[in-house]
Amino acid sequence: MDLELIRSLAVPNTTKLVLLSADGLGGLPSPDTGRSELETAHLPNLHALSARSACGLLTHVAPGITPGSGPGHLGLFGYDPLRYRVGRGVLEALGIDFELRAGDVAARGNFCTVDRECRITDRRAGRIPTELCVALCQRLRQIRLDGVQLFVEPVKEHRFVLVLRGPGLSGQLTETDPQALGGAPRRAKGLAPEAEPTATLVNRFVERARPLLADAAPANMVLLRGFDRLPEFPQLPQLCGLRAAAIAAYPMYRGLARLVGMEVLKTGTTFAEEIATLRQHWEGYDFFFLHYKDTDKAGEDGEFAAKVAALERLDRFIPEILALQPDVFVVTGDHASPAILRGHGWQPVPVLIFSAYCGADPVSQFTERACAGGSLGVFPAHSLMPLILANGLRLTKFGA
Amino acid sequence: MDLELIRSLAVPNTTKLVLLSADGLGGLPSPDTGRSELETAHLPNLHALSARSACGLLTHVAPGITPGSGPGHLGLFGYDPLRYRVGRGVLEALGIDFELRAGDVAARGNFCTVDRECRITDRRAGRIPTELCVALCQRLRQIRLDGVQLFVEPVKEHRFVLVLRGPGLSGQLTETDPQALGGAPRRAKGLAPEAEPTATLVNRFVERARPLLADAAPANMVLLRGFDRLPEFPQLPQLCGLRAAAIAAYPMYRGLARLVGMEVLKTGTTFAEEIATLRQHWEGYDFFFLHYKDTDKAGEDGEFAAKVAALERLDRFIPEILALQPDVFVVTGDHASPAILRGHGWQPVPVLIFSAYCGADPVSQFTERACAGGSLGVFPAHSLMPLILANGLRLTKFGA
Repeated sequence: MDLELIRSLAVPNTTKLVLLSADGLGGLPSPDTGRSELETAHLPNLHALSARSACGLLTHVAPGITPGSGPGHLGLFGYDPLRYRVGRGVLEALGIDFELRAGDVAARGNFCTVDRECRITDRRAGRIPTELCVALCQRLRQIRLDGVQLFVEPVKEHRFVLVLRGPGLSGQLTETDPQALGGAPRRAKGLAPEAEPTATLVNRFVERARPLLADAAPANMVLLRGFDRLPEFPQLPQLCGLRAAAIAAYPMYRGLARLVGMEVLKTGTTFAEEIATLRQHWEGYDFFFLHYKDTDKAGEDGEFAAKVAALERLDRFIPEILALQPDVFVVTGDHASPAILRGHGWQPVPVLIFSAYCGADPVSQFTERACAGGSLGVFPAHSLMPLILANGLRLTKFGA
Repeated sequence: MDLELIRSLAVPNTTKLVLLSADGLGGLPSPDTGRSELETAHLPNLHALSARSACGLLTHVAPGITPGSGPGHLGLFGYDPLRYRVGRGVLEALGIDFELRAGDVAARGNFCTVDRECRITDRRAGRIPTELCVALCQRLRQIRLDGVQLFVEPVKEHRFVLVLRGPGLSGQLTETDPQALGGAPRRAKGLAPEAEPTATLVNRFVERARPLLADAAPANMVLLRGFDRLPEFPQLPQLCGLRAAAIAAYPMYRGLARLVGMEVLKTGTTFAEEIATLRQHWEGYDFFFLHYKDTDKAGEDGEFAAKVAALERLDRFIPEILALQPDVFVVTGDHASPAILRGHGWQPVPVLIFSAYCGADPVSQFTERACAGGSLGVFPAHSLMPLILANGLRLTKFGA
């Protein structure tokens, strides 16, 4: 959406808006049956809701482009993901619930193995156990550099996150990870003159890290990539005049919601707990972003039947959400995860918008095939948020 | 549309093109029947025409954005309303058939009531009768300012239009109307250095107005807002190589047509008279913009049955238009005005394009639901004009 346009048109209201992102919702027909996951699952509640909703298909980035979870969700939140970019390091930090601040630079780190000549022999240090990763990160936390605060956070196995916090940092750096064996880790270089001081800091960090890890083979060196500065995005609550809350069991999605200024509500690890959180905070907010993870996990694992089951579990929660009587209820996903692709897909994703004003629509099945004939057409994900606001009577007329 | 692209591709032809804008055409289902105004009305002619046409849905500004009549019609004329903007003052002047010239600055005025300390006690002066408004505007016409010609034109009740004509004027001014009671009218300020002289002129006008109205309580002061300079838009006849005429019973729509260079034909106050005007001038022009107001009025009044009746009246005129054998006949609207919303809506609006070359299309009902499945899809209103020209064989190939 044109964020400034939305800011200029937003008006206060007391309507309640719920955006449910079923991660990796869209699928593809099974070669055996010719029916997609959504077409195979028993989804009485979603189908009935689609008959009362405006339906369509969302394109998250552009036709043919497979979105990662970052761009996928930013699009749903109203931010054109081609304009509002988030790098690997930042996503990695968000994924461990690290509370990045504006201006922080984050990088994805690997513990790796080097030989005596400091040539890389294993980029992943034999995938060391996570406990060892935690211990080695603890060692690296001894490193102090002038003018910058450092955070070294373990992720899983050989993976960690490095965050630099301080004034004037830049994420425009080359990577120290050559992504190949046999050579030495590279020195970080600034891709712009103003990035040179940050490159110097990163290289000093690596120089200090080496002796600290000398006795820790196979994890005796570090590689850094995906440097990125936390971008300062316009904040959704101010843009749209909303008290916005995020309910997500997984840290990455909480982090993405925080990026656009949503308040992250404490919740449990299951979707049932997310729904309980929604119910509990219903009065306190206008807009709720609700994240359902199971669909994506099954799709990425290539488990068609598991994805069908995940959809059916989700379907059973729909009446609980409707019982809260949201003024606008949207069901969609951040990208497709077709089981036969075993990963994210570029296919447009079904979306339904339910409200008193969503309009006549011929669709009565919440599937890829049926939604293709919906009144919303095939449209960019970042146009969804204006539609949500409009259906909640939270946008005034453009022009007299 | 990309206006320069159209200019470069336009070729002469003798085909006749008719664009019928049924104001506020689109609707929403009645909660009682589940059927929209278009789905409820008996529309044998429009439905039969839709079966022979290419159909789709128009988005006028962007998804979720409710267009005013200005942006709605500019879109239909081929001008992206986000790029070609028209302010409140200009629309108000167009709405009373005031012939604005390029560079004129117009503002919407209110007569208001102020107390002895010049604090506003009623922003609308108790909605004085229009006759009084006319008399008070007559008083304000005594005001003369150096370097600028002034026009003070009554509208209705407490509303009037102020137009400044002269070299170097700017519409980038703050409003004198604080849109609140208890404070004094504000002084206009320039939002850019080049707007300062205009702000000074406006403030002088207000200073002279006050003593002239001192004895006219409750209409003893003026408030000004929506300052805007008449934009210089590329002109449709030159862009498209068309002799273009507008037929509209209501002044606002004549004014919008004039903005893009259409010739405004003298007509009566009913749609029957508009059709007579169309017949009478059929040989003289290539392109006719025909405006039908009743649909919008009923929708804005929240009168579902009245909107249905307005659609049925319109339907009975369709054979008369077809009898003229236009090469291209388009029926659509400038925005939705669903009766249940009692105002403009953001919902996409049905459109049909009838021509010898419009193509195979599955739609045989001219309704929101049916048009969602049409071959034109859901598309921006400013792409309609190129389609009209193409169907009239008035655009050559792009590239060899």
